[in-house]
Amino acid sequence: MSSENTLDDEDTFKILIATDIHLGYLEKDAIRGNDSYNTLDEILKCAKTNEVDFILLGGDLFHENKPSRRCLHNCITMLRKYCMGDTPIQFDIVSDQTVNFNTSKFPWVNYQDENLNISIPAFSIHGNHDDPTGAEGLCALDLLSASGLLNHFGHSQSVESIEISPILMQKGNTKLALFGLGSIPDERLYRMFVNNQVTMLRPKEDQDEWFNLFAIHQNRSKHGPTNYIPEQFLDDFLDLVVWGHEHECLITPSRNEQQLFYVIQPGSSVATSLSPGEATKKHIGLLRVKGRKMNLQKIPLKTVRQFFIQDVVLGDYPDLFTPDTPQVTKKVENLCYAKVTEMLEEAERERLGCPLTPEKPLIRLRVDYSGGFDTFHTSRFSQKFVERVANPKDIIHFLRRREQKEDNKGLTLANSAEGLRVEDLVKQYFAATEQTVQLSLLTEHGMGKALQEFVDKDEKDAIEELITYQLEKTQCHLQARAVTTEQDIDTEVRRFRDSKKNTTEEDNEIKEVSNDAHEPEPLSGLMCDTLDLDSDGGSGPSAAPTRGRGRGGRGRGAARIRPG
Amino acid sequence: MSSENTLDDEDTFKILIATDIHLGYLEKDAIRGNDSYNTLDEILKCAKTNEVDFILLGGDLFHENKPSRRCLHNCITMLRKYCMGDTPIQFDIVSDQTVNFNTSKFPWVNYQDENLNISIPAFSIHGNHDDPTGAEGLCALDLLSASGLLNHFGHSQSVESIEISPILMQKGNTKLALFGLGSIPDERLYRMFVNNQVTMLRPKEDQDEWFNLFAIHQNRSKHGPTNYIPEQFLDDFLDLVVWGHEHECLITPSRNEQQLFYVIQPGSSVATSLSPGEATKKHIGLLRVKGRKMNLQKIPLKTVRQFFIQDVVLGDYPDLFTPDTPQVTKKVENLCYAKVTEMLEEAERERLGCPLTPEKPLIRLRVDYSGGFDTFHTSRFSQKFVERVANPKDIIHFLRRREQKEDNKGLTLANSAEGLRVEDLVKQYFAATEQTVQLSLLTEHGMGKALQEFVDKDEKDAIEELITYQLEKTQCHLQARAVTTEQDIDTEVRRFRDSKKNTTEEDNEIKEVSNDAHEPEPLSGLMCDTLDLDSDGGSGPSAAPTRGRGRGGRGRGAARIRPG
Repeated sequence: MSSENTLDDEDTFKILIATDIHLGYLEKDAIRGNDSYNTLDEILKCAKTNEVDFILLGGDLFHENKPSRRCLHNCITMLRKYCMGDTPIQFDIVSDQTVNFNTSKFPWVNYQDENLNISIPAFSIHGNHDDPTGAEGLCALDLLSASGLLNHFGHSQSVESIEISPILMQKGNTKLALFGLGSIPDERLYRMFVNNQVTMLRPKEDQDEWFNLFAIHQNRSKHGPTNYIPEQFLDDFLDLVVWGHEHECLITPSRNEQQLFYVIQPGSSVATSLSPGEATKKHIGLLRVKGRKMNLQKIPLKTVRQFFIQDVVLGDYPDLFTPDTPQVTKKVENLCYAKVTEMLEEAERERLGCPLTPEKPLIRLRVDYSGGFDTFHTSRFSQKFVERVANPKDIIHFLRRREQKEDNKGLTLANSAEGLRVEDLVKQYFAATEQTVQLSLLTEHGMGKALQEFVDKDEKDAIEELITYQLEKTQCHLQARAVTTEQDIDTEVRRFRDSKKNTTEEDNEIKEVSNDAHEPEPLSGLMCDTLDLDSDGGSGPSAAPTRGRGRGGRGRGAARIRPG
Repeated sequence: MSSENTLDDEDTFKILIATDIHLGYLEKDAIRGNDSYNTLDEILKCAKTNEVDFILLGGDLFHENKPSRRCLHNCITMLRKYCMGDTPIQFDIVSDQTVNFNTSKFPWVNYQDENLNISIPAFSIHGNHDDPTGAEGLCALDLLSASGLLNHFGHSQSVESIEISPILMQKGNTKLALFGLGSIPDERLYRMFVNNQVTMLRPKEDQDEWFNLFAIHQNRSKHGPTNYIPEQFLDDFLDLVVWGHEHECLITPSRNEQQLFYVIQPGSSVATSLSPGEATKKHIGLLRVKGRKMNLQKIPLKTVRQFFIQDVVLGDYPDLFTPDTPQVTKKVENLCYAKVTEMLEEAERERLGCPLTPEKPLIRLRVDYSGGFDTFHTSRFSQKFVERVANPKDIIHFLRRREQKEDNKGLTLANSAEGLRVEDLVKQYFAATEQTVQLSLLTEHGMGKALQEFVDKDEKDAIEELITYQLEKTQCHLQARAVTTEQDIDTEVRRFRDSKKNTTEEDNEIKEVSNDAHEPEPLSGLMCDTLDLDSDGGSGPSAAPTRGRGRGGRGRGAARIRPG
């Protein structure tokens, strides 16, 4: 450990936390193809430089369920390069590893394998992109596990009930219980929580001495009544939740005042959509845990391609032009050109002194052309930025937001903003319109699937484009209503984004978890699941623990479920 | 080393040799799905039991270029299980490993990696099934190499010229030069040999002390004028050639009297077609090399599914029935039933005392129904053997061979058996018939591609079926001629098979390479490529060798090329 940092001592866990690395994203793109690889390299190098005890990944290490050969090869190469070596590991695992790594043929942590020299063990849950498939229930992470390069944990194989058994780690006097749950379809997991089918096992002994860390990869934003996991579903004995899947970097610990735990949302390390959430500066976290206190240091990523997004509402420029101004389209184009140029200049200023940051930024200008304006040809516009922008072809995104209020009465989506996800909005919209118009070009099932793909990829803003595309294929008289649907969806998406925007950008944010906040309050009538400590001390695959029920502490009960 | 075997001493290399394991072949088949996995397990276990110094694989470890996740996972798991451990490695590598493993990010043999504990290093060239693809030129083996589980060598990246630089190994006083060349399209490699673009580098010093072993994965059978590699193309300084790609097990060393080297053709360890060559009992080899003497021990594989193939010519039973016999079809079916039952009984007898051998054998009965007989419905027939045969659906294969001579005049394939491969035969046939009939249903290009796929998979007998299928789609009056084509192709394929059938089945065949046989005979006027020895002794990635030309020994010259 570095002697300069007084925080780092023999009782302090140092954990590098990252999520949604989406390795292989756009790997065939001539400009952006290496972005995800460069950033994984940066993340692993950072782990090495900081001499962390281990790496914790929150899922979606891979963008594709079946990563390309190049993608797997790059990943294997980097893990071997950075995570193997002579540096001794300073912590022990005292839980039953055959339970922790129950899906592996080598059910023990890689650094305890006598044939592998691991300097930084990496632990990962799987995300929705790299989730297990097939009869064997294998995911891409399992190839890394089998090779001994990564420890895949939190894979629940039952659809009936989920038992989350923590990896119990001890470093000096600090006891860390690492819980993990790989991605499960949100609605199913929601239902399982409601039906009391999710159980978190706790160590039986010294229950209050453990720092309880939980990695989860689900919707955190409310995308529909049951299409997310409310924080309140999670056990309140937890100290910190690492929330994967959501791409916006909200890594500063936010306290859940109801459950009295903290949540960090590291966000993706590569922008997989051109939505506002992805424009937030990307960070990873260096978590220190000593006893039951924690400290989260935000580390900005330098290799991440800059992304600037801006909105322009043409109707806001009545002094400059109106739809009737001569050559208005040319003038609009000039305005957009100026806006993009402005963003490029800002990007360049920001990039100064950051040699690792790619030269060409991602730029998105959302142009609200409501009020009778016309769009212009973006291909000619794109051409002008081909040398300066990483995404020249889709800089401009036309939309009509202004017309929302006037057209709203035509739709049945009265309560749309209250707890419906975008897919539901679209389904409702088409259900309503189908009564009058035959949608011969698109079955609802087909569309649902297409939408699902978009949503799965977290490209929520792309839905707007999809709807526009679909509507162009249907009857023209639907146009006005479609615009209203876009509008509602956009409002919905923005609401989610905005609700998460109260983040500050300090790079060294320190929060402490008070012990008092987690004083056990026995609740009568609730079952409690406990887990024996393995007294071996973890110098190898350790003995099986016994599992007790109903003793001490407190568990999660249905009574405490308060869907947000 | 086992003390019982007096052959095994500190100067003796013990090498387990296998090829064409075709991992993942038919992995989705309910009966045969695990065959390839079980046999890899047996092979690796055998390597461990025999305490070999290393494993040498001759290509096509994987059946699919992009193996499934299950396939990769199984392979990784088995390699980690059998090839990692504490057993010390008894030989050194003295060549420049950055050259030997030039396509790897970790260009050194896995057992010298300080972060990996390798007990049995495995070396493999790639085959045509697992060959490198994509801009990065990566193949599935490279994932294993990157993980440190295998040493992929013999990957020539240039299409202009090939330089084969051996891995120079030393164990006690024995010096072994391991040359390898991963699969290259036969016609291209043939041309490169003819154009003198293939060079084998040799150690500069003590040139005659090296045992020269070469692994190659190409057509050995003459599939066409330039669609194979004549043994005569290979350098005569070689001592032993391990020939992959050909699936028939001809592992007993056969001496090439012209080049004065031996060739072993281990054959595949799983039958990927129901052709006679695959019915030969499958073996792997345990090669011992001491000084320049070698010994090849054949090891029969126990997990390989039995395969019996038999021919029946209906016209050979005139006393039993003729095409006009009442209920002849039923009688033919009964005859076939008896033949299959006979083969099943033979299989059962053979399997006695072999608990590792799968219960249901592969059975193929080729029924020549020429002379006016009809075929019967095989679906009903298959049903009877569903519980006893691994391939119930394709036991019976109808063909008409007898009519060859009578119909031959209708074809332009005068010289068909002399040096044309099956694809060429078919192309010629269609070229001839196209003059009178418009083949609207199939372009030649499309067919060529389809055929190529079959041929690439070594399923040469499947071509008969393909042709039949294609012809059914064309005009009826082509039928008679098509049958003749089938006939010719079959003859051709059989000729190849038969020519290789003079194998004996002893399990312990010992051959010795006499030093005299390889006494250097300087040929004036020939270039000679030599390679410096690295004097370091190979305790790590070793220093770069220098490369000399024109000194001592003898190289391969165009003058010696005698295309067969």
